[in-house]
Amino acid sequence: MPENIIHKYRGLIEEGLQALPFQKKPDSLYKPCRYILENGGKRIRPVLTLITCGLCRGELAQAVDAAIAIELTHNFTLVHDDIMDQAESRRGKTSIHVKWDDSTAILAGDELFVQACRQLTRYSADSSYTPEQIHLLYSTFFESVHTVCEGQAFDMEYGKRATVITTKEYLEMIRGKTVALLRGSMIMGGIVADAEEEELHRLGEIADSVGLAFQIQDDVLDLIADPDKFGKQRGGDIREGKMTYPMLLGLERGNETDRNQLLEVMKSSDVTDSDIDQTIDLLNRYSVIKSVREVIDSYYQTAFRVINRFGDSVYKEDLINLIHFLKNRDY
Amino acid sequence: MPENIIHKYRGLIEEGLQALPFQKKPDSLYKPCRYILENGGKRIRPVLTLITCGLCRGELAQAVDAAIAIELTHNFTLVHDDIMDQAESRRGKTSIHVKWDDSTAILAGDELFVQACRQLTRYSADSSYTPEQIHLLYSTFFESVHTVCEGQAFDMEYGKRATVITTKEYLEMIRGKTVALLRGSMIMGGIVADAEEEELHRLGEIADSVGLAFQIQDDVLDLIADPDKFGKQRGGDIREGKMTYPMLLGLERGNETDRNQLLEVMKSSDVTDSDIDQTIDLLNRYSVIKSVREVIDSYYQTAFRVINRFGDSVYKEDLINLIHFLKNRDY
Repeated sequence: MPENIIHKYRGLIEEGLQALPFQKKPDSLYKPCRYILENGGKRIRPVLTLITCGLCRGELAQAVDAAIAIELTHNFTLVHDDIMDQAESRRGKTSIHVKWDDSTAILAGDELFVQACRQLTRYSADSSYTPEQIHLLYSTFFESVHTVCEGQAFDMEYGKRATVITTKEYLEMIRGKTVALLRGSMIMGGIVADAEEEELHRLGEIADSVGLAFQIQDDVLDLIADPDKFGKQRGGDIREGKMTYPMLLGLERGNETDRNQLLEVMKSSDVTDSDIDQTIDLLNRYSVIKSVREVIDSYYQTAFRVINRFGDSVYKEDLINLIHFLKNRDY
Repeated sequence: MPENIIHKYRGLIEEGLQALPFQKKPDSLYKPCRYILENGGKRIRPVLTLITCGLCRGELAQAVDAAIAIELTHNFTLVHDDIMDQAESRRGKTSIHVKWDDSTAILAGDELFVQACRQLTRYSADSSYTPEQIHLLYSTFFESVHTVCEGQAFDMEYGKRATVITTKEYLEMIRGKTVALLRGSMIMGGIVADAEEEELHRLGEIADSVGLAFQIQDDVLDLIADPDKFGKQRGGDIREGKMTYPMLLGLERGNETDRNQLLEVMKSSDVTDSDIDQTIDLLNRYSVIKSVREVIDSYYQTAFRVINRFGDSVYKEDLINLIHFLKNRDY
């Protein structure tokens, strides 16, 4: 049962999150921090930090602070992204900038990230890690967050561009926006386990494949998933005029009429359920969703191939099963 | 000439800022980063990082990356604060969130801070620093930024409170909002110079005194400085309904009528130049500005006393002169 895998590691993560120094004043800073962290989410990134630590023969307990830093950072990016994207809800609950206001959300995001950094200082305080490990840990972490910022900026620029971006440009953008933090979470698990350079490289490869697959899958699920399960309105990306991989592939494949229909629905400020249905029909006429599923599958296959170069362990098994779980999710 | 002192250290800082990796794509991320950094400012914090490094017998070159990290962080807080405070200009130029938009400003602020963190990784990459120094450097830095976030949150909460805060609460708030980063900048200069614990403690004391004096002085200058020199509209804090030390002291000292007059002008959304003049007259009737100047002086005297416990050096001289310069500034 893949849910059991997440459950097995989640305990350590929830415990770590509970122990954060967020039960204090000022309320206007810490309440929104607690709100977003208690709002759940799948905790996939920190679970992956724990698993990759185990995969590289480390003790799970060593990876908890890195995992917490990653989860805090993920939530920091969500809080700021929700302001930028004017997203009203997150995981089925009101976004912080709507429940409170923009200022509160900006500052809560800042604090979540600073707290992530503070969490990492537990490693530099611990003499059992080498100076090289410490440097690699900090620099991998900051590099990830920096790449996320670049990805988010490209995303916003592309949204304002007069011309449509290519699927290639889109993939480069999500390498920043989505993949970079996943990369950080997996490589950091290896670093705290004192993994070899070659192993860290492999973890990066797995993260790249899983991350791209995961985001493209998200794009597809936004079109076809059950909104109650998915926690977002169906076709939400289209309604917000956001580029997604299926839409961009549809634009690359469609004839002029169909291309114009897609562009029109993306530009429209009042997209109806029927518009979404028609868009999906159009994409299916060009086998877009089928092709996108094949792209997703191919990335997942790469991930499995690289994972198999690690020695057998319960963590390797868990990682494989977890990725199968991500691959098969319908929400 | 105190300006010469700043000039002497500024070269190293401007060089470091020029070398930042901000000359690239995406433009929407890096243009605003360059814009705020090129907009100048006094660079007092990074200059203090260099000086405290010298004061503790370090080579100035050692402190440049820490100084850059501090200046980047200072600008990160300015960019985000300007959104929160809806400030239209900064150092006489249009704020980023006005020149571009809120989203651009949020993301540029995030990147400025992440870049500050990346700058610090140059120390952990350098084996001439001990693991203890590296840990202290990172943890001092993150602690400062964390305290700044808390201070900003208190500031926003106080602004929304029905009752007026006390001067004591105000001082506690600016210990976060203004003093914490100055503390970080001065202590970090000591850390990279491998200063003793007792010396770092002294640097913290100096920073606390200078920081409080500096902010309270800013409050006074907002009332009485030449707007062209100061780069802000005269009485800007009152116009924005912001609490300042002179106003709070006026509220503590005034009779009911005068108290109400002060409260009214602070609540008013349309404060005229004549309102500002009348407010200053009122404060002068209670010797508020005179008393506030005495408070400022007393903090500066503490700073000078602690500085004198360091051994004589050109850096000690420069620090004393620089603080005299801050003390005597009229903009």
